[in-house]
Amino acid sequence: MTDRIWTAALLIIGDEILSGRTQDKNVSQVATWLNVQGIRLKEVRVVADEMDAIGEAVKALRARNDYLFTTGGIGPTHDDITVDAIAAALNVEVVVHPEARAVLEDYYVTRGGLTDARLRMARVPKGAVLIPNRYSGAPGIHVENIFIMAGVPHIAGAMLDALTGTLEGGDPVLSATLGCWVAESEIAELLGETEKAYEGVQIGSYPFFREGKTGANFVIRSTSQAVLDACTAALAKELNALGFLAVVGGI
Amino acid sequence: MTDRIWTAALLIIGDEILSGRTQDKNVSQVATWLNVQGIRLKEVRVVADEMDAIGEAVKALRARNDYLFTTGGIGPTHDDITVDAIAAALNVEVVVHPEARAVLEDYYVTRGGLTDARLRMARVPKGAVLIPNRYSGAPGIHVENIFIMAGVPHIAGAMLDALTGTLEGGDPVLSATLGCWVAESEIAELLGETEKAYEGVQIGSYPFFREGKTGANFVIRSTSQAVLDACTAALAKELNALGFLAVVGGI
Repeated sequence: MTDRIWTAALLIIGDEILSGRTQDKNVSQVATWLNVQGIRLKEVRVVADEMDAIGEAVKALRARNDYLFTTGGIGPTHDDITVDAIAAALNVEVVVHPEARAVLEDYYVTRGGLTDARLRMARVPKGAVLIPNRYSGAPGIHVENIFIMAGVPHIAGAMLDALTGTLEGGDPVLSATLGCWVAESEIAELLGETEKAYEGVQIGSYPFFREGKTGANFVIRSTSQAVLDACTAALAKELNALGFLAVVGGI
Repeated sequence: MTDRIWTAALLIIGDEILSGRTQDKNVSQVATWLNVQGIRLKEVRVVADEMDAIGEAVKALRARNDYLFTTGGIGPTHDDITVDAIAAALNVEVVVHPEARAVLEDYYVTRGGLTDARLRMARVPKGAVLIPNRYSGAPGIHVENIFIMAGVPHIAGAMLDALTGTLEGGDPVLSATLGCWVAESEIAELLGETEKAYEGVQIGSYPFFREGKTGANFVIRSTSQAVLDACTAALAKELNALGFLAVVGGI
């Protein structure tokens, strides 16, 4: 066990999210992956494909978190300016990475060759190393404490796979869920008191309306399995005593 | 036509999004609604249920946008601190809104009565007015240029419905989509040149991989129907001339 909490921020770059055209899937994917690495996702920002907006967010987020992940804006088209914006924020040049160039040359040998637009995807902030991408040739980029990934979720997922186990983190966050057919307002005080009674535990309450009925799932989180088990058992006992059947695993 | 661009930010408050437990649906919902109101969503942040994190984001986002929308953290449980955090950021007291109290008393008359926990949902920053909620009694809150809404997507949607047409905005953003079975890297330069040739137009490129094939949709946006039509027709003509069949509406 360690007391040090490792944190990360996620910066999503893309007009397509802000316009409502594309439903984001990277927040939950990155968050879930970070939990397993023992790193806590502290904040997320979504900004447009604009140099200033990206630069400001990069500077703020990387300064106060151990890691910054970005998704989006690393393709071959005119609106892909993530690399330029991050290099400017770090005050370093943009260079063509020889290994990225070789990977792209190889990938496009049967796909029409490496055009100028495609070569854009080999550009990196000076000093960067690559994150492998088993899908489409264009690699992700690791520079300083920043991990620059693709916006397309399955490609971002492949880049996370490649990073698994390589980042320093703390103890993974463990969680348990209890579900009840109850209005959360009826047991609000119980939740608050239970959370206070167990050190380091967080309890989230997630109400829903289903089949015309009101219910809620309660998610208990801790880095200690023993504390998690004790808190979950205590909450289940109290809920049952109040006449609400607590379903382990949630409903 | 007006040249004034109206902007909004969205602040999503909730550990459940940052933990990866819940898939956010409010970004795309709010973005789509704002488009119709003639307001551009400029930035989104997701923060934890923490006073300082909420306060910092509220101050930054509301200062540089016409409107700030928030979702989450207005329920009856211990982790619902949005109202307190926003009141603190505005340097005003939290008061019980008499109309909200009356709405909740009425709603809970057949549901076990208005407990202390439920009464929490009538608390507002001083000076606020209510946003009706036809689903669950607990209203949204409008204070200064901030619109405080529920996190549950269908309730947030109902609050947006109640606000439709009430906010000052500019011309709605219009869009058209062309789809092609083409790797975006093959036509990257064409997209950049076409965007430059039509004033005020933005072209986004959204690649996908489907049925083992590479394709992309190109979304053209403008506040002028005439400019949008001209740009879309020109891009379709160029794509067709290059041998890529441009499908109107996207693929």
